[in-house]
Amino acid sequence: MTVLSLNSYAAGKWVAPSGKTAQLKSAIDGRVVAELGSGALDFQAMAEHARGAGGPALRAMTFHQRAGMLKALAQYLNERKDALYELSYDTGATKPDSMIDIDGGIGTLFAYSSKGRRELPDDTIYIDGGVEQFGKTGAFLGQHVATSLQGVAVHINAFNFPVWGMLEKLAPTLLAGMPAIVKPASATAWLTEACFRMMIESGLLPEGAVQLVSGNLGDLIDRLGSQDVVSFTGSAATASMLRGNPNLLGNAVRFVAEQDSLNATILGPDAAPGTPEFDVFVREVHREMTAKAGQKCTAIRRILVPEAHRPAVIDAISERLSKTAVGDPRHEATRMGALASLAQKKDVEEKAAIIAREAKLVHGGKEPAGVNPQGAFVSPMLFFCEDPDGATAIHETEAFGPVSTVMPYRDLDHALKIANRGGGSLVASVFTHDPKVARQVVETSGAHHGRLYFANRDTGKEATGHGSPMPHLVHGGPGRAGGGEELGGIRGVMHYMQRTAIQGSPDIITGVTRTHVPGSTLKAKPEHPFRMKFGELEIGHTLETPEREVTLADIEHFAEFTGDNFYAHMDEDAARANPFFPGRVAHGYLILSFAAGLFVDPAPGPVLANYGLDNLRFMKPVSPGDRLKVQLTAMHKTVRNDQYGEVRWNVVVTNQEGEQVAGYELLTMNAR
Amino acid sequence: MTVLSLNSYAAGKWVAPSGKTAQLKSAIDGRVVAELGSGALDFQAMAEHARGAGGPALRAMTFHQRAGMLKALAQYLNERKDALYELSYDTGATKPDSMIDIDGGIGTLFAYSSKGRRELPDDTIYIDGGVEQFGKTGAFLGQHVATSLQGVAVHINAFNFPVWGMLEKLAPTLLAGMPAIVKPASATAWLTEACFRMMIESGLLPEGAVQLVSGNLGDLIDRLGSQDVVSFTGSAATASMLRGNPNLLGNAVRFVAEQDSLNATILGPDAAPGTPEFDVFVREVHREMTAKAGQKCTAIRRILVPEAHRPAVIDAISERLSKTAVGDPRHEATRMGALASLAQKKDVEEKAAIIAREAKLVHGGKEPAGVNPQGAFVSPMLFFCEDPDGATAIHETEAFGPVSTVMPYRDLDHALKIANRGGGSLVASVFTHDPKVARQVVETSGAHHGRLYFANRDTGKEATGHGSPMPHLVHGGPGRAGGGEELGGIRGVMHYMQRTAIQGSPDIITGVTRTHVPGSTLKAKPEHPFRMKFGELEIGHTLETPEREVTLADIEHFAEFTGDNFYAHMDEDAARANPFFPGRVAHGYLILSFAAGLFVDPAPGPVLANYGLDNLRFMKPVSPGDRLKVQLTAMHKTVRNDQYGEVRWNVVVTNQEGEQVAGYELLTMNAR
Repeated sequence: MTVLSLNSYAAGKWVAPSGKTAQLKSAIDGRVVAELGSGALDFQAMAEHARGAGGPALRAMTFHQRAGMLKALAQYLNERKDALYELSYDTGATKPDSMIDIDGGIGTLFAYSSKGRRELPDDTIYIDGGVEQFGKTGAFLGQHVATSLQGVAVHINAFNFPVWGMLEKLAPTLLAGMPAIVKPASATAWLTEACFRMMIESGLLPEGAVQLVSGNLGDLIDRLGSQDVVSFTGSAATASMLRGNPNLLGNAVRFVAEQDSLNATILGPDAAPGTPEFDVFVREVHREMTAKAGQKCTAIRRILVPEAHRPAVIDAISERLSKTAVGDPRHEATRMGALASLAQKKDVEEKAAIIAREAKLVHGGKEPAGVNPQGAFVSPMLFFCEDPDGATAIHETEAFGPVSTVMPYRDLDHALKIANRGGGSLVASVFTHDPKVARQVVETSGAHHGRLYFANRDTGKEATGHGSPMPHLVHGGPGRAGGGEELGGIRGVMHYMQRTAIQGSPDIITGVTRTHVPGSTLKAKPEHPFRMKFGELEIGHTLETPEREVTLADIEHFAEFTGDNFYAHMDEDAARANPFFPGRVAHGYLILSFAAGLFVDPAPGPVLANYGLDNLRFMKPVSPGDRLKVQLTAMHKTVRNDQYGEVRWNVVVTNQEGEQVAGYELLTMNAR
Repeated sequence: MTVLSLNSYAAGKWVAPSGKTAQLKSAIDGRVVAELGSGALDFQAMAEHARGAGGPALRAMTFHQRAGMLKALAQYLNERKDALYELSYDTGATKPDSMIDIDGGIGTLFAYSSKGRRELPDDTIYIDGGVEQFGKTGAFLGQHVATSLQGVAVHINAFNFPVWGMLEKLAPTLLAGMPAIVKPASATAWLTEACFRMMIESGLLPEGAVQLVSGNLGDLIDRLGSQDVVSFTGSAATASMLRGNPNLLGNAVRFVAEQDSLNATILGPDAAPGTPEFDVFVREVHREMTAKAGQKCTAIRRILVPEAHRPAVIDAISERLSKTAVGDPRHEATRMGALASLAQKKDVEEKAAIIAREAKLVHGGKEPAGVNPQGAFVSPMLFFCEDPDGATAIHETEAFGPVSTVMPYRDLDHALKIANRGGGSLVASVFTHDPKVARQVVETSGAHHGRLYFANRDTGKEATGHGSPMPHLVHGGPGRAGGGEELGGIRGVMHYMQRTAIQGSPDIITGVTRTHVPGSTLKAKPEHPFRMKFGELEIGHTLETPEREVTLADIEHFAEFTGDNFYAHMDEDAARANPFFPGRVAHGYLILSFAAGLFVDPAPGPVLANYGLDNLRFMKPVSPGDRLKVQLTAMHKTVRNDQYGEVRWNVVVTNQEGEQVAGYELLTMNAR
């Protein structure tokens, strides 16, 4: 077997190991797999390359273009993933473990591509929230936007997910338009390097968008400034050291951390043995203890069960654990592979010994039989702690392997109090069929956990698992878990962008956001705006319609035709008695329908369909004899595909006094 | 004159100065105004009082109840503000300066009260964003929520706004349901203490909701944990020291900072002398230099002007400055008061001397005439720096007084490059009438500034001013400005809450959020839901209507009646040619109208009005002969006042195949 020489990728060049190199060993048999060392790297040049080449190239692309790039990258990796699976065995991972890492990582790229396309504009400026008005006339407005940070993101990853760890940070970073320098954990860096190499070979990313440090980070952290970001996954001790770096503190460099977590699971008070929830719970605990040999920051470390069900829980989990074959992950029969290294094995055994001071080992603990002694194999260990209130170590000691502790609780409040003793966690799960239990959990414990996972008989196969961070949901937690957030859909993208409050006249806001805001200059033109192709239609193009009177006969006819005989339209006395109406009034849907009759240009043309409507509000009643007219203004455009795009129109319906009676945003699809 | 003895307020008791006390002097005449010292405080007991009494009491209230409390507090202070104005003179503030501080602070309470009422639910759990679906059936969903942090917020305030500084932090904190310990800057602490005293005397806040430290913070910072927050306003040096506290780092305690800022203003390339923008610019620069004697973290420190207009700008600003009477703020004729202390005066003079190494003094610099020599009076100083590219100190040195430097630029890109040299700022302003200039500013410079303020001939009297943080907009900035955010409407409230991702079955999500989500159990009942009073109506109460066929005659009749003859409804060939339609289809508004006809219960009852509709999407065309039916489900309720509340209904319109053709959320007002 050849030893892999792990290169770095710096300022557009592959750089071989040099300086103080390290040898990386297989988790299965201890042979040397790879060598790495970053002694030859010029970290200042790397940071400048990211800021000077990668950043500008990414910022020149719109969110949609970056989303397209992520999708292509995901497809490219997906076609080549077999090679990554092959390299993954030596990290100790079984095939299902590798799926979480490799397919999970690629899936995160796909998910961000899709979110970017659907939830971000085809532009470089993100519009955050609504327009704020400061005075009565609306001559001066406020609008939050976000733009790409102009520095470099330094990603410091953990050893347990060499592929997912890289891709889950890259997806939001690249979508934000920010370049990254990736620093994988050494223990499993050969897998990260192989995946990174594919990304470069794909040619899909602009030069400078990503760089790789195989080895240590040198003085890179001391070279970061106010536009840079550090995103860290790893131990609380390392996080604390990095956070305290004087350069990061002095420049208020953003620091996103995801670190230790003593995640709890709670068997609900209603989930007695015999209920479907009990079975779902046992399966989930077993899976979380053994997947990735327990090396997940989200794994279950504390198992909280009603006092009465303690024996049943220990028996059921122990039974499953005893059937879990530990061994070479390449073997078909293997259910749990190895820890990532002998150093990790030693660490897990040390932590288990600390836990054993407060808890009794009730299952496992022996060396697994028939495995290579050079491999980092351990058996699952299940502990039981009689007095979780008096204990401290079990709430603070993370044995990063297949180690978990059962503890009894008296009632739900007691369970939540124990769960909160973790001092901030990434996730807690609760197995219950009772929504009231769920509400109480969120009220009492929400503030202590980044994610609360509820499973029961209804959640079935679609349940994503206690331990799986989803791209849609934030991954992170308060306190011990690092106080950070990753993922969470577009929330995760915002870590790599700066939110800025824009203040100015309506025309200035419209100019910045390319979205017509109230008070902005209207562009009345001879052509009806429905006659303009998507590309030709100008933001602000407006149509003022003639008036149409609404008669009592119209109201009565509409009621008869539609069947909507609501008293406010049909009964003068009852309508008057209502706090909102002066007497009989027109139906809201009659106002909408007449408005369309006023503004629609009927002949075939670029407008293909009305596909929806947002933020409709009826502001003033319309009485018989009122005369309505409509102002229709092109507000925002979003390309959908080669054939058509979405146009958002602002519609204002006024009466003969010029008072607004209704307002809404109309959506049409227009041919390009 | 008696010397004020500034008390602390700890664990429900007023505590007199003790330990190492300090004497505070008037900024105007140097006499001793007050004494303070926190030697007798038990900081651990204060933190526990906040966590044990204040937090639970606040968390027991809904957002709306807390908003009501803020409003009552604002009214209480507003009626007593004359006493605060009187105490403010000795801080050096003129009456207009005090307005910014005192009325600005009270206004922030009002603004948060109003935002809390309108944008937060009448509940203790905030729903953040939409539902996320993971699988095809929707059996397992995700929803982000936020709940109050369960610790204490420590507010460390700056000397320049003794009232606003306290209230702008308290408003979002209390609205979030979190108690606070307020630590005012010593130099002006008598004014903060007086305002704080009023808050306690009002009896409007629950015990433990607020405490006050008059003096230094002792070891409080070392006693904070994962549920606590530090919110700091002050110098970058102090911020760096606090951020680096090992306890804060180790527990990942949230740290919000607002610190130094070398704010720039740019006279736009289009804003030549003679344009309205030029005049607005000169007025604003003068105001920002002299308001609060330049002691605003948002004040203009760097004035960027086109090379050609440099003489005109210096002349115009100098002329205004020469008319600015400096002196006792109690005097009618005074336009600028004193700095907060002689120490501040010394600091400003030292910083001005540093600036003078790179820039020439072009106006001011002499001691003001006829003022009390024991007062901290300075004259405004205007500098000019010929070479802003070669300079460094002018981009890094904040003279916290009426000191600003003019610098020339070649073109807009050059100006933005200079502006960005500040290394992150709270605000930059641009005086331009050209939306294209604004767009370029945001693209190039947005990432460096927390706020971008555009003013011109259109913004007029409603413009809120370069230097005024608004409750609606974020206040903070990257890098040198601290990397934090305050205010920004509800964004500011979220700093004191924990975001948690909830995963579970639809019924679990509905139970947690009290909002019906798709897939959640429907409650079909004998009563029509329109017959239920607001209080009786259950979330999930649902109505299934009979079917109604849509005929071609209906479509033609609707077109004729409303005037909406769009070709997709009227012309079979043209409709077929359209990518979305199989042939002639029903109007979207016809579908809405028939749906209402199907679900409306006409007789007078609790439903008072349809007041709007959100998120309407037409999902499938309705062809002649299709039969529609409607499912109407109570989704969410929000009390509005004693008489009625808002009900949000989920409406699903399906055809005879059970396919959804339209979906929307209907809003009604229902009597209580």
